Amino acid sequence: MAVNSPLPVAADLKPVNGIELGFAQAGIKKPNRKDVLVMKLAEGATVAGVFTKNRFCAAPVLVSREHLAAGKPIRALVVNTGNANAGTGEPGLANARQTCAEVAKLLGLDAQQVLPFSTGVILEPLPVEKIIAGLPAAVANLKADNWFNAAESIMTTDTQPKAASATVTIGGHTVTMTGISKGAGMIRPNMATMLGFLAIDAKVAQPVLNELVKHAADDSFNCITIDGDTSTNDSFIVMATGAGALEVNSLDTPEYAALRDAVTEISRNLAHQIIRDGEGATKFITVTVDGGRNVEECRTVAYAIAHSPLIKTAFFASDPNLGRILCAIGYAGIDDLDTSKLDLYLDDVLVVKAGGRNPGYQEEDGQRVMNKPEILVNVKLARGDASATVWTCDLSHDYVSINADYRS
Amino acid sequence: MAVNSPLPVAADLKPVNGIELGFAQAGIKKPNRKDVLVMKLAEGATVAGVFTKNRFCAAPVLVSREHLAAGKPIRALVVNTGNANAGTGEPGLANARQTCAEVAKLLGLDAQQVLPFSTGVILEPLPVEKIIAGLPAAVANLKADNWFNAAESIMTTDTQPKAASATVTIGGHTVTMTGISKGAGMIRPNMATMLGFLAIDAKVAQPVLNELVKHAADDSFNCITIDGDTSTNDSFIVMATGAGALEVNSLDTPEYAALRDAVTEISRNLAHQIIRDGEGATKFITVTVDGGRNVEECRTVAYAIAHSPLIKTAFFASDPNLGRILCAIGYAGIDDLDTSKLDLYLDDVLVVKAGGRNPGYQEEDGQRVMNKPEILVNVKLARGDASATVWTCDLSHDYVSINADYRS
Repeated sequence: MAVNSPLPVAADLKPVNGIELGFAQAGIKKPNRKDVLVMKLAEGATVAGVFTKNRFCAAPVLVSREHLAAGKPIRALVVNTGNANAGTGEPGLANARQTCAEVAKLLGLDAQQVLPFSTGVILEPLPVEKIIAGLPAAVANLKADNWFNAAESIMTTDTQPKAASATVTIGGHTVTMTGISKGAGMIRPNMATMLGFLAIDAKVAQPVLNELVKHAADDSFNCITIDGDTSTNDSFIVMATGAGALEVNSLDTPEYAALRDAVTEISRNLAHQIIRDGEGATKFITVTVDGGRNVEECRTVAYAIAHSPLIKTAFFASDPNLGRILCAIGYAGIDDLDTSKLDLYLDDVLVVKAGGRNPGYQEEDGQRVMNKPEILVNVKLARGDASATVWTCDLSHDYVSINADYRS
Repeated sequence: MAVNSPLPVAADLKPVNGIELGFAQAGIKKPNRKDVLVMKLAEGATVAGVFTKNRFCAAPVLVSREHLAAGKPIRALVVNTGNANAGTGEPGLANARQTCAEVAKLLGLDAQQVLPFSTGVILEPLPVEKIIAGLPAAVANLKADNWFNAAESIMTTDTQPKAASATVTIGGHTVTMTGISKGAGMIRPNMATMLGFLAIDAKVAQPVLNELVKHAADDSFNCITIDGDTSTNDSFIVMATGAGALEVNSLDTPEYAALRDAVTEISRNLAHQIIRDGEGATKFITVTVDGGRNVEECRTVAYAIAHSPLIKTAFFASDPNLGRILCAIGYAGIDDLDTSKLDLYLDDVLVVKAGGRNPGYQEEDGQRVMNKPEILVNVKLARGDASATVWTCDLSHDYVSINADYRS
């Protein structure tokens, strides 16, 4: 189903020293489905996260923020699918706290050392007893080599698990990192994606990790959109287990820059996997806007294109009805945009030159690009040096079918 | 096809003294289709309009603005469908001007007394010869009792013509007004709809008419959205023919207020007809947000709901998956929204109370409302006295089909 996104191979996902993962089938929404995940971190790990800016953020997001702020070392994460525990008020908060307390009891920790995460339907009470009943099984199968199962355990409407590993050498030390993500609808992350977890075996000081997670999210999950709907549960967590030889204590070091870039790259890989598996997606679209006065206006234009249902359906139909792209650029909100300087490329095809149809443009050239499963839309604003890129997918009949049937 | 929108009856559309309408089949995009409309105004008429804020506004929009600004009395309007004449650069402007010149020649006017309008595909050259060839036929059948044909002549993906008439008594005088509109996709007007034309037989001073058209557009066409795509060609024109007995020369009169309210009401009727005939629409949704600090934040929340593909597909499926509405409220962009005070009604059903699921809410109550073809979503922000209403439709398989096939 997913666009040019081969299934991750379990054997390619490298264990990261200092973290173990265990799953359970708790029957939260459907039977016989991995729906609870526990991640256990070694002593000495640091953890940082970014969370949704949705004002209706879910109970587990509130509790995760609270536990991170409390300052005790985070030693475990617990994730359930099938229910978002969002819009659930005080009972939702109590359920998230109880889940943490049960994990803490099983692992000999304090409840504040556990971060909870949920994903699924909003506005329905969390079946907390089912989750609690599943926890002993998840804890019993904790192991380092469990990333593929972990990726499967956090899926909802995803058609395939999302995971990636990388090994980099920084300052003479080998660093291993493995991450998983999920999400296929309600995707237009604002500070983070629906759920993403990344472990690295370096030792990273808390303030450094806090910066690193923001940077990585901004250049990856925060640049993707499927349907423009920013979820109530977006969370992206980076865990530095400290079990490897690399130690990073300051932002002003080449080691930090190298680690940041490596983490950003793998985060982008995980974010792209989400788009490639977007609900009903048949095309992977990269929208790059350059020549802007600042990054914000480039992003604004890129998102206007990436969110337009008319453009997304044209991609689905492989129809080079490219005036729709001009239209979106025009209404994006740059009030003083001089359209007479603007160029538009589709891959290498110059469609619009100086604000009008390029005299040399042939519809067959546009058609050739539109037929491809991966397409670059490149808008040149010609008013500055800033640029931004957003990744998205098309809008198909299957998007409507999936979301008309999601709860059934 | 359209949601609870009976076909306008030709006999119900009242002629307005001082305006005649004529159409032609010019074969612009398809043969045997009314695709050119000419409207001829009596001497003494005043005309005012509001136009799209899209930066890529179409050539005819630029020329219409220019001719209105020139200050000569506007005496004719010419409309073509099948081609938007947008993204067409200098040749597009020349084509729009030539169209005006040809109409002027046929009617004995100056070209600056003619306003041009186009709607259809963007980024393709206007087949101006076909339009010009069709003009004599359109002028030959100019008559007062031609509003139904006129409404048909401006349709594109519309499944039915949109028109309305009203007669009101103001200051002891009978005033007749008739309007037409078109549009079914690329609809999220910003200052005006795709195309709307309204004639009234009162005599209205130019500065008064300028105010009146803005007021009417703001409370009608500017409150609807189908797909969030603000067109390059949006135009809404009010023509006061001056042929009736009522004369309005000042904003500070009860006559102005009465006329403004009557025009706003008929404009809203025309705007609603567009939503009811929205591409693929099966539901007519009213989103009312009240209790806001100001109208802008109420509109922001209402549009977040009205644009969410997840909410629109849930309406299509009649699925009371109402957490999606909470989610959209949460990401709408009110940074200091206190969700714990917020209530959400679906028609008369209280779904969310004080930010969480209403304990008395039963899914069957939500289901009962979702099954209806007309639904009110009412969000109570509880932080002020402002309110706003936006009208929209659902997102169905047919929207995707229509827009995947539009040009073929």
